[in-house]
Amino acid sequence: MTGKTDWLTEHYRQVNAAFAQNPPISLEESRDLNDHWSGATTEPGGVDYVEVDAGGVPAMWATPKAGVEDRVLLCLHGGGFIGGSMYTHRKMFAHLAKAVGARALIVDYRLTPEHQHPAQINDTFAAYRWLLDQGIKAEHIAVTGDSAGGGLSVQTMLHARDNGLPVAAAVMPLSPWFDIENGGQTRTTNRMTDVLFGGETPMNLEFLVQILLGEHGDPKDPAINALYADLAGLPPLYIQVSSTEMILDDSHRLATLAEKEGVEVKVEIFEDQQHTWHMGAGRALAADEAIRKLAQWVRPRLGLA
Amino acid sequence: MTGKTDWLTEHYRQVNAAFAQNPPISLEESRDLNDHWSGATTEPGGVDYVEVDAGGVPAMWATPKAGVEDRVLLCLHGGGFIGGSMYTHRKMFAHLAKAVGARALIVDYRLTPEHQHPAQINDTFAAYRWLLDQGIKAEHIAVTGDSAGGGLSVQTMLHARDNGLPVAAAVMPLSPWFDIENGGQTRTTNRMTDVLFGGETPMNLEFLVQILLGEHGDPKDPAINALYADLAGLPPLYIQVSSTEMILDDSHRLATLAEKEGVEVKVEIFEDQQHTWHMGAGRALAADEAIRKLAQWVRPRLGLA
Repeated sequence: MTGKTDWLTEHYRQVNAAFAQNPPISLEESRDLNDHWSGATTEPGGVDYVEVDAGGVPAMWATPKAGVEDRVLLCLHGGGFIGGSMYTHRKMFAHLAKAVGARALIVDYRLTPEHQHPAQINDTFAAYRWLLDQGIKAEHIAVTGDSAGGGLSVQTMLHARDNGLPVAAAVMPLSPWFDIENGGQTRTTNRMTDVLFGGETPMNLEFLVQILLGEHGDPKDPAINALYADLAGLPPLYIQVSSTEMILDDSHRLATLAEKEGVEVKVEIFEDQQHTWHMGAGRALAADEAIRKLAQWVRPRLGLA
Repeated sequence: MTGKTDWLTEHYRQVNAAFAQNPPISLEESRDLNDHWSGATTEPGGVDYVEVDAGGVPAMWATPKAGVEDRVLLCLHGGGFIGGSMYTHRKMFAHLAKAVGARALIVDYRLTPEHQHPAQINDTFAAYRWLLDQGIKAEHIAVTGDSAGGGLSVQTMLHARDNGLPVAAAVMPLSPWFDIENGGQTRTTNRMTDVLFGGETPMNLEFLVQILLGEHGDPKDPAINALYADLAGLPPLYIQVSSTEMILDDSHRLATLAEKEGVEVKVEIFEDQQHTWHMGAGRALAADEAIRKLAQWVRPRLGLA
């Protein structure tokens, strides 16, 4: 599985096929397959990686050699709450950290099916509070995340607000999954363009929600579905999503709701990319371009020239 | 390209096929393909990675959370002098460092075709000297390397001896490539069992030697071909190699020569593994077993209980 630009798409094809198997692949096989997600991304180089206990939550500092220490990106990986890790996304977030010139704290929050909601948001919130406890100012923190991590990036700030903590300077959800009711037109209209979630054998997102919420969980719970949450007081949002994604509408719907509450929101649509195409950083031009734009947008919001 | 145990073999099949293409793949394509070598290895976890200038040579510290700081593995990656990097081998050497309970310094020595011999040995020697300059005692250092790096592990110690420096406590060449004249019976008899170098379309190792040595280079140069070197004064050697490898004889021949010079040598043959199967660490039992044995052998030689 090689080639400079199609590695990620090919990986998604394999994941889609693996989940369409009957019987389905085991959790262990799924985790092993998931580990290879990181293969899409090149090594950024010039970045150090140190694992840390972030308020009881495993996490990893990705520290660019050229960068400041007092500005931090809080990074929440994707993977449908069941997959992804600080390892799968190490290089992608390190590319972003290097572009911004700040440190990244990549959070290894607890996953399903071993841990149901609200373990995930409790962990990301604990990591955010830990950052503040370390003396990092809220206005020097930007939160970012892809897919499920994109949803968590917004939820973490709502959780901070509700717990009387200052919110970060900015939030950058990437291909975010907000609607765990799995509504929205693009879930239908983009089915054949979304390699990971759609195609002839669409992935069963309802299953991911079931194991996230458990038997008695509520997919309208505002603590996990931002489309039902009070969004007032969120910091500026910069959402990147692709035209081909089944969950594209999640971004538009969240943006409309957030703008009504006076939140500054920018939604940028990248044409013809696959879900979290940022994982192609270093190989795919569109990934590098997306990361360049994220850095350009967030630097002044972090007080970087 | 997934599956728990066959990832490495499948990668080797792809590399072999890529080099058999007509016209051959470009250097850039080859490097990109090479980057995916690292996909064979799982993340060991609990290891930090910090890039460092090791006496003018780029290198990376892999530091297990549980381990001592004053014992060091000097790690020289494989890749035929044209490929591999401190990134491709980061996880594999980190697995080893974790098993030993010591730090690993992974050296990013210069590669062909941009840099000919003796750039490679100059770099690995500079890194070794730098370790001594940092106050690490020679008797607290073990040198290891796979494939071309296995050859360099021995050459680095010969270079140290010739320059009046103490040699390390031990050397552990893995699937080592010593004979750059490419002789030895197993280059013929193991052709069909060696997925990377052999098969229907054997890799052109002579080409790798040509770009390493240049037009007027001598494949009998003892500074690059250990089979022509004076091996007296080498520290104990523990060589791991597989029964299926075309370069299997390199290990037997080097061992015979070294033993004649009074060097303590152990050659252990692993059955039915592919070249540098250690790269399957975390996924392949034989890789984990090889690493366990390396740690067990080297720990007392580093003064670790």
